Order: sequence, then structure tokens, then C-alpha cells
Amino acid sequence: MGIRVGVAGASGYAGGELLRLVAGHPEFDLVAATAHRQAGQPASVVHPQLAGLDLVLGPTEPDALADADLVFLALPHGESAALAAGLPETVRVVDLGADHRLRDAAAWQRYYGGAHAGTWTYGLPELPGQRPAIAAASRVANTGCYAVATTLALAPLVAAGVVEPADVVVVAASGTSGAGRAAKTHLLGSEVMGDLSPYKVGAHQHVPEIKQATGAVSLSFTPVLAPMPRGILATVTAVPAVAGADPRAVLAEAYADAPFVHVLPEGTWPHTAATLGSNSCHLQATVDVDSGRVIVVSAIDNLGKGAAGQAVQCANLMVGLPEQTGLSVFGVAP
Amino acid sequence: MGIRVGVAGASGYAGGELLRLVAGHPEFDLVAATAHRQAGQPASVVHPQLAGLDLVLGPTEPDALADADLVFLALPHGESAALAAGLPETVRVVDLGADHRLRDAAAWQRYYGGAHAGTWTYGLPELPGQRPAIAAASRVANTGCYAVATTLALAPLVAAGVVEPADVVVVAASGTSGAGRAAKTHLLGSEVMGDLSPYKVGAHQHVPEIKQATGAVSLSFTPVLAPMPRGILATVTAVPAVAGADPRAVLAEAYADAPFVHVLPEGTWPHTAATLGSNSCHLQATVDVDSGRVIVVSAIDNLGKGAAGQAVQCANLMVGLPEQTGLSVFGVAP
Amino acid sequence: MGIRVGVAGASGYAGGELLRLVAGHPEFDLVAATAHRQAGQPASVVHPQLAGLDLVLGPTEPDALADADLVFLALPHGESAALAAGLPETVRVVDLGADHRLRDAAAWQRYYGGAHAGTWTYGLPELPGQRPAIAAASRVANTGCYAVATTLALAPLVAAGVVEPADVVVVAASGTSGAGRAAKTHLLGSEVMGDLSPYKVGAHQHVPEIKQATGAVSLSFTPVLAPMPRGILATVTAVPAVAGADPRAVLAEAYADAPFVHVLPEGTWPHTAATLGSNSCHLQATVDVDSGRVIVVSAIDNLGKGAAGQAVQCANLMVGLPEQTGLSVFGVAP
Amino acid sequence: MGIRVGVAGASGYAGGELLRLVAGHPEFDLVAATAHRQAGQPASVVHPQLAGLDLVLGPTEPDALADADLVFLALPHGESAALAAGLPETVRVVDLGADHRLRDAAAWQRYYGGAHAGTWTYGLPELPGQRPAIAAASRVANTGCYAVATTLALAPLVAAGVVEPADVVVVAASGTSGAGRAAKTHLLGSEVMGDLSPYKVGAHQHVPEIKQATGAVSLSFTPVLAPMPRGILATVTAVPAVAGADPRAVLAEAYADAPFVHVLPEGTWPHTAATLGSNSCHLQATVDVDSGRVIVVSAIDNLGKGAAGQAVQCANLMVGLPEQTGLSVFGVAP
Repeated sequence: MGIRVGVAGASGYAGGELLRLVAGHPEFDLVAATAHRQAGQPASVVHPQLAGLDLVLGPTEPDALADADLVFLALPHGESAALAAGLPETVRVVDLGADHRLRDAAAWQRYYGGAHAGTWTYGLPELPGQRPAIAAASRVANTGCYAVATTLALAPLVAAGVVEPADVVVVAASGTSGAGRAAKTHLLGSEVMGDLSPYKVGAHQHVPEIKQATGAVSLSFTPVLAPMPRGILATVTAVPAVAGADPRAVLAEAYADAPFVHVLPEGTWPHTAATLGSNSCHLQATVDVDSGRVIVVSAIDNLGKGAAGQAVQCANLMVGLPEQTGLSVFGVAP
Repeated sequence: MGIRVGVAGASGYAGGELLRLVAGHPEFDLVAATAHRQAGQPASVVHPQLAGLDLVLGPTEPDALADADLVFLALPHGESAALAAGLPETVRVVDLGADHRLRDAAAWQRYYGGAHAGTWTYGLPELPGQRPAIAAASRVANTGCYAVATTLALAPLVAAGVVEPADVVVVAASGTSGAGRAAKTHLLGSEVMGDLSPYKVGAHQHVPEIKQATGAVSLSFTPVLAPMPRGILATVTAVPAVAGADPRAVLAEAYADAPFVHVLPEGTWPHTAATLGSNSCHLQATVDVDSGRVIVVSAIDNLGKGAAGQAVQCANLMVGLPEQTGLSVFGVAP
Repeated sequence: MGIRVGVAGASGYAGGELLRLVAGHPEFDLVAATAHRQAGQPASVVHPQLAGLDLVLGPTEPDALADADLVFLALPHGESAALAAGLPETVRVVDLGADHRLRDAAAWQRYYGGAHAGTWTYGLPELPGQRPAIAAASRVANTGCYAVATTLALAPLVAAGVVEPADVVVVAASGTSGAGRAAKTHLLGSEVMGDLSPYKVGAHQHVPEIKQATGAVSLSFTPVLAPMPRGILATVTAVPAVAGADPRAVLAEAYADAPFVHVLPEGTWPHTAATLGSNSCHLQATVDVDSGRVIVVSAIDNLGKGAAGQAVQCANLMVGLPEQTGLSVFGVAP
Repeated sequence: MGIRVGVAGASGYAGGELLRLVAGHPEFDLVAATAHRQAGQPASVVHPQLAGLDLVLGPTEPDALADADLVFLALPHGESAALAAGLPETVRVVDLGADHRLRDAAAWQRYYGGAHAGTWTYGLPELPGQRPAIAAASRVANTGCYAVATTLALAPLVAAGVVEPADVVVVAASGTSGAGRAAKTHLLGSEVMGDLSPYKVGAHQHVPEIKQATGAVSLSFTPVLAPMPRGILATVTAVPAVAGADPRAVLAEAYADAPFVHVLPEGTWPHTAATLGSNSCHLQATVDVDSGRVIVVSAIDNLGKGAAGQAVQCANLMVGLPEQTGLSVFGVAP
């Protein structure tokens, strides 16, 4: 008998990926999934890739999740706190939304608006000290997709004093699933195929989360929508703080024991397709010949390590399982 | 201690998918993989999606596979027989190439040229009687990708006398990985993105295999290259043999116990993205209002159910495991 | 001083392509464009590819088009007749919608529903006798995109008695712009990239138009949505009516004087990317080795020869210009 | 009788686009095109989008270009000088390769290797003073694709003293046609679709050209290959040199009279699809809220304004035509 798992907000892309991962997890039993407008629909109709899964979506309310020992929340911003409040303290909760990530309530209000719902344990296991913190928590705030890609690339370098925490410049491109499943004209296939388009330039809401998680004190972050369903490629540059440092070696040491973070062989650069469907992050670093800046590139699947995979990794830790359980290190390519 | 598995021809796309599936299989141990020009390279360099896999490719010769109880061959046409001849009879072999699929040596010569290497047990478990035949075989000829998609759609209807075996018309589009990994100008991303292109029109080499497997006696088969890495969508039409037949019901009954073949709910049509990375085949059927033709559409992942997944399914049967072991019913989407 | 041109329904994809072609046309002056919800917006905001075009969209009503000598209608089904009724008879009108294509009111009602708006001159110049008919008309019904691709491939063969008009089977795949610009979940980039999906299987509304234009008496037509913004590839198969006929030669003769229809060199097959942005149709034909069926493949840009380009070609004829004026024979590739 | 034009190196992607533009140019007559291995082939076979063009490729040697008044060179690096030396001084030459762009021979040797072929007039008409310089030149070095996108975004800001010339950070993503038409495994459609991959990180050969053209003195430039055939999106960030500057206003003024450079309305950001097939560059700028950096984004078609379109624009100036002749301001979208 496995851990009984519920997924709230199962009709979106992160929700669908959670259903796929939970249904295939050797120690989890998928007992409930909920949605708003799609409540009453079979999960396999809402997500055709789940043909063969026998599960009907219930309404997004605590009663629909009463059988679960562990609940994933994949809800719009601002809705997690209310639902979580209706779940017993003994039920472990991983929130894939942004509501409980920030420690700074003022930053929350500036970028998201509305009252801050409070701060939960930050769900990035590869940060120093986070594995035991997550294992001990009953409420975990899963990381934002851009924050994962950027933090894994940058945090060890800031912590080691290899780069300056000021004047960090990040340009990160994401597949379209990162923009969600709501029907919007600018997200139509006709518009996005063959297209690269920046958005929220100069003021993206992931900035405070990235600064909090990486230790950066000044961050220029430009996100770009790329013509692919999944994947994030983050190009992270920072001014070196010491002469002659080897950023790749620092990263390799930081992640020596991390099963999902791979610092690639020298001369090999990450690319997003290699991480599709996996929970892996690929990293590489160098020092720019002309500017002397440290450049780190990281690649993840935004729905994997950037959302649902990361959430399952945290949940594994919370219930005492090996963190890899039910997750794939390997991507689906080509 | 699991089944010791080797993969010959591991540098191509089917080979890479075999490595992914075997490395993630709970009962298989990946002990060897071989290649021609890439021999000596780490598998994770040849296939970046396998970062974290500790395996170096050996040369494609029997000695490199001496530790294996079970060998998958993913070699160019015409090379399987020689390698298989160098493996002991006790080693189980699944050949993903075309060499041993056809019963008719003349048809082999007409479409492939050269001497026919002989006929092995046909590796399509969902055909009547094939599960026990595969389980008893030590040599299995895995199906061609187009043949799987077409046969699963058509064979039960021919067998049930619902459609005429003459005048079958199939148009099937495939993702570009079906065309292989050799560097060719017409397969460059710049050429294939945004493009649909037919090829081998009027004379594709899968025609005799499809006729053999489906019972069709006259087949017009047109393959099309589509701008996506994976997936086959086959549109199969045939003249009804009886009035008022319900082709969907015939298919649903034929596959009632098949874990990987899903006849979708009425009104829902298969699409390829829903099968990505899985071993599933999605089917739907109707009768055309104007022409009265039966139309069946099937979708698979050409590297999954169309190649490596199917091969693992056969191998599971050959070694006495449940056929689903290590394979996913669910696709990676979006 | 050129022909003064208006475009009604300029906010959709066909409308945007009309604006591009009219604005670049050496003899046309773009004097007005209209939209429903986007009225009041600059055309270059609604269509970012038109940056530099100084034109604000007006409301879709006759007054907004009062300055035009020639009007293109790119409206939803059922709206063309009312608007056209408000335009003087001296104003030439090309309707890109379906309202006035069919001669058979009963077929209209069966496939579209509602009252039939009447029949206008059919805007496919390459059909025998259509150039003078279009030149003499003040009201022209532009062809449907699938109908153009199929008719150019099939009509000369039926007319020449080379193929039987019964048992025609067509599978045609279209880029997503053919599904329009309304925001729908199944048309999101995340859903369509990497995906082939059939739709309206067994009962597409273009069937009566194709039968009317080609002379086919029985037609199985299956449309498929393909992961690219533009392009249609139609695979048309028919039973030969005579022995030894050469379908390619028949097509080459039929289109010897057509500037936009190219029967490719033998052994070369059409592909959609080669027609992007052009008004060309590429054709090739063969006889299937196994079935003996005639197979013709045609490729067009669904917004070019399949919609806006074709409409401009008709308009050129209507005002006495060479049909090629302002249109490109060459595609934008890669 | 128009200007007689030849294209050397017509079999690649830039060469194909040159053929398309020259063949459609109202004042140019395409009299010759050459290739290496493809010599003897019809241009319409090498470039299927040119079906209908009656031209056979000749060998790449001066005699094959003897009829031309104006020659475009689209040759591999290092081959332009030798061919140009064989052409009379009276023949105007635009070199799309890198050979003659740099003024600094040492920089050439460091990034390209080999002897420097000399410096020609730099073919970026929008730089101050370049239009008359190009008009007076008989030899023009066309800009590199990344250099165009970056320079148009940055040069006016450096020149106006709005940003510091040091610590410029650029991340630019390009469609795959920028990587050329040679058959390479990592450029196969199967590999690039769904993929973003950085390359030449820390040491791209366009760095010295960009520094020369923009006035930047320290440049971190990271190029990324994106899953689309065409388009460059450059994200250019720089430290402000003055408080309260308005970078968008500076750009708008700099390009007030440039027909191909469009500073978009405030709040609207460039995206590559809007420039497809055109010679336009779209720009937008802002100041980052957190870091205070100036961020400019520019979008071009790498084969249009980034190569062939730019070359035709230069050629127009050289022969005394309006620079827009035969070029489109509008993109082909969606």
C-alpha cells in the first residue's frame, strides 16, 4: 500500500505532468485529482496523453482530497493558501504556485499584488541544507521554473565567492508550456512557431525569488518565449570576484552528490531537448574571452525539474523515500 | 540480478531510445552497447539526454556483446544476420531492422535488394497468437514503424471481414527521427521545420510487410515526413465488406486486453503528441459520410511502439516478464 | 492612381495576409480595413509583421469601405452576404468565405447549416473557362484552401478521363493558420508543436466544394492539423480509368500556361515549405506500384494560393491586370 | 534593361535568398548564379522554392560572372578575395562573407585564422555616414547577421553617451539557417526541433565585428541556436552612463528616416516571426527595474536584414536606386 496522493489543479500543464509522474510512481497511489471548470471530466480526456488512466477529476475543494496523505497544489497564484487551510496538518502539501516562496512580504506585494500568504520551506533540494529541511516539513513551496534554472547555475558561485552578487545578467528562454494552458491568441501555435518573443522585460515576477535563492543583489532578468513546448535554457553571466577561478569546478563539486544535476564534460554545452521529460538539470560554465565575465548555461524541462518533477522530488524527501523514486534522470530525445 | 542486456547499433535514434528504456528498466541490466564510428565514445556524449549514464560504446561485434543474455539489434538493413550468427543460440535476440520480417523472399528482394536473411518470429504482440509465439522464440523480428501503426488499425477489421482486403489506401506521416540520424541536407532542421514532404511515393519498402501483417491484398501507401521529431499518424481507409458494421467496436473488442492499445472515446481522435515517449497506440474509427469508406486513424511514437518500446515489449515476453515492465503507457505532453 | 482597395475582416490570418499583399501591390492602394473587436486598433499592432503600415482598422460596416473600388471579404461564415448587400454593384467584391461557393443549396445546408446566400462566380482561375468568367464578374467566391489544393491535383485527371470520379481518397494536412486566429486551447502552441491531429474525420465541410470543383462523385476526405503555421499538403489518390495513362503529363499540359502551377520535374515531390508566402501550387503524380492507384500530391500556402493570394489573383483578373501582379511565384525558404 | 546581377555561392541559404530577391527585383536582371558541387544543377532543383525560375548554376569562377554589372558573393570564409580579384573594378561587389568586414587584421587572425584579406566599406546603411559611403563604393562588406541585430540596438546608445561602452552583455538566439546548409548531425531536424542550444560560448567570431560597429569596448556575447528556420532575437543590455536617459527615444530619433528599422510602440516587444522574409529590424528598449540596466531587444530575419536583404539594400545604394527597391518592409506571418 503506497502513499495516497492527490493533485489539486490537475487540468493545466503542470497538473498533467504531476498526474503522469504520480501514476507512474512505484510508491504513490493517485487517489484524487481536482479541477475548476473541468471537474467531472475524465483525466484522460483533459490530458489525452493519459489514455488508460481511470480517474475522473473532482472539484477543487478539500473534501475532494480527503483520502490523500500528500497533496500537490498546481493552482493559480493566490489560491493555494485557502485550499491548504482546509487540509489537516498531517497531510503533507507541496505548492507548485508562487504563493509561499518569498520570505519578503513587500517583494511579494510589489511583484504579485495582494496580501502575502506566508512563507513555506523552499523546495529546492540541491541548495545547501535544504534536503533535511524539506524532509522535516509538512508544507513545501516548490520553486519557480526560471528560479530553478538560474539558481542551480548561480548559487554555488555566489556562495563560493567566485562571482560578484551585483550586476548579474540573465537571459532565459522557455518553452510555451511555461505560459500555461489558458487559451490566448499570442500563444496560438500559428503565432509561436518560428518565433522568439521576449515578455515582461525589465520586471518579471521571478526576480525576487531568484535573488532570494541565489544571493544575487542586482539582477537583470529577461525572459523569452521559444518555439517549443517544453524546456528552459538560462544564460547566466556575472562578474568574477576573484582572478583565475574555475566556475565549472565549483559547480562540479557543489553537485557531486546530486543525482539530477549534471555538470557536462568540458566543451559540451547544455541543450534543452536533452532534458525533456526528465528531472535533470544540465550545466556548463566558462569565462568569456573578451569581457572576462563568467558564463553559466543551464537547461531543464520547465515542467520537470522546473515544476512537477521537482515537486515529486520534494515529496519523496518529505515521506522518507530516495529522492529519485519515480523520476527519470534521462530525457526523451530526439 | 537482472537480465543482462546488450544493444548493438546504439548510436542512432532507435539505439538511443533502447538505451534509455533498458537503463530505466527494473529487471534489465544494461551491460554493453556498440556502435560503428562512435565506438569508444561515452553513450552520454553520443546521446546527451543520457547524461549520468556510465557506459562507453564498444565496437559492433559479437565479442562486445559476450556478457549479454539478451541483445537488441538496431543496425542498418542487411547487417543483422551476420552479427546474430555470432551470438549463441541461448542469447535472445530482437532485431529492430527489416532483415527478418518478411516471409516472402521475393518481396524482400524487390523492395530491399540482396539476399533474404530468413524469417524470424514477427514481433507484434497484439496480433492473434503472437504473444505465445514471441514468448517461445529466441529470435524475434521487430515490426517496422509504419507497419505497427497501420497493422494495429487495420488487421482486426480485415480478420473480422468488416473491410475488403483490396483497395486499402494509407497515408501516414512520420516525425523526422524515422528517417534516421545520418547527416543529410534534406533532413536539416532548416529544411524540415514548417515542411511536409512525401517520399518514396508509390513504392515504399514497408508495403510487403504491411500486407503480410494486415492481410491486405492491394495497398496504396504514401509516407510523408512531418515537422516534428517523433510520432506517426496513419490514416487508413478501406472499403466496407458488410453493411452497417461498426469498425470502432471491432477494434475495441480486439484490444480489450492489450495494455498499450487504446481505442479512444467516440468523437476523440488520436494525435501523435499524446503518445510521445510511450509504448501506446491510440486508435479511432468511423465511416465516411460521403464515400462510405471505413476510416481508421492510429497514432504512435515511432521510436516507442514503432521501434524501441515494441522491442522491449517483445523482450519482456521472451524472458517471461509482464509485457508492460519498464514501459510507459502514458505519453510526455505537452 | 491605383485601384482603391478595402479589406473587411482584417484582423484574422487571411485578413493579415491580404493587407500584406495589397500594401505591397504596385497597382492597388489600401484605403480601408475593418474588424469587429479590433476596430480602432492600428493594423500594425494587430499584425506586428506590418510594422510601418499606417492604417487604423475601422468597424466592419459598408460605410467604412465607402472609398473602395474593390473589396475583399475575410469574414466568418454567414456574414458576407449582408455586408456585400451594402456595397454598390459597381464595387467589385471577392469573398474569401464559404458563403457563395456552392451551387447546391441543399449541400450548403447539410454542411454549414442556415440559409444559402447564393452562388457567385467560382474564383479558381486555373479551371477551364474560369479566367474570362472571373474577369467579367463583379462578385467572386474565392476557393476554400483544401479545395484549391485538391482541385488543382485532380480536376484535369477527371476531365481527361484518366481517373474514375468515384472512390477518390484524399488525405490533406494543413498548417495551423488554417484553423483561424480565435484563441482555443487545442490550437495553443504547446498542444500543436510536435503533433499531428486529424479533425472532422468523415464529414468535412469542404467535401461538397471539392466534388463540385473536381467532378468527383465519391470522396473520402480526411484533414489533419500539422505542426507548422502555414502550408497544405494534399495526397490525392484515385482509381485509373484507362490503362497506361500518364497522369503527370496530363497535369503538365493542363497547366502549361498557368504562371502559378508548377508540375515538378519527375522524381521530385512537392513540399509545403517551398510555397511559403507565394501564390504557387506545386504538383507531382505517379502510379502506385502495388495498388495501381494514381497518386497526386499538391502543395500550397494555405494563406497564399489557398486564400489571400488566390483572392488577389482573381482581383487582378477582375480589374484587367495581369494575374501575377503583386504576387510572388517564389516561396520564402528555408 | 535592368542592372545585370550575378550571385556567387548560390546553393546555400543566403544564396537562395539572394536569388529570390534578385529574381523579384524590378530593376535587377538575374544573369548568372554559381556554385561548387551543385554547378550544373537548375537553381529550382537546388532551391525548390524557386520552381519556375529558369536558371542553371554555373561553376564559381570569374568567367561564369562575366555578364554581370553587380555581383553578390555568398561564399565560405576565405574565398571571397580570390574571386573578387578576378572581377573588373567596374563590377560592383557585395560580399556577404566575413572576409572584408574587420579593420583590425589582428582581430581577424585571432577569430578566423589565416591572412586578412583587407577591409571594404562596411555595409550597414543605418550607421551614421554609411549611406553615402556605400553609394560611393565599388566593394562593400555586408554585415554579419548577429552584428546587424546587435549594432542596430546598441550603436546609437553608445554614440549618444546613454550607455557605457564597457560591460555590454548580449544573448542572441538565431534560427538554424544561420548555421548554414552543410549536412551536420547536430543540425538535423530531429535534433534541433524542441531544442535551444548555445554554441561558441565565450568566443564567437562576431565579437570583433560587433565591437567595431557599436563602439562597445567590452562585450560578453552568447549565441544560441533556436528551433526555427529563420530569425534572430538579440537581447542587448548595458550599464547606463547617465541618469534618467530614455533609450527608446534615442533609438526612435536615430532611425526616424530609416525605412527598415522600426522602433515599436511602447510596451510592444519585437519578435522574430514578424520579420520573416522582410528586410526590417524591430526594436524596443527599457530600463530594468531591479538592476537599472538598459535593455534593448532587436529582431531581424537573419537571411533578410541579416544577410541577403541587407546586401540588396547596399546594392541599391551602390547603383543609385532607392534603398527599398525590391525589398519588403513587411514580414510573412503567421
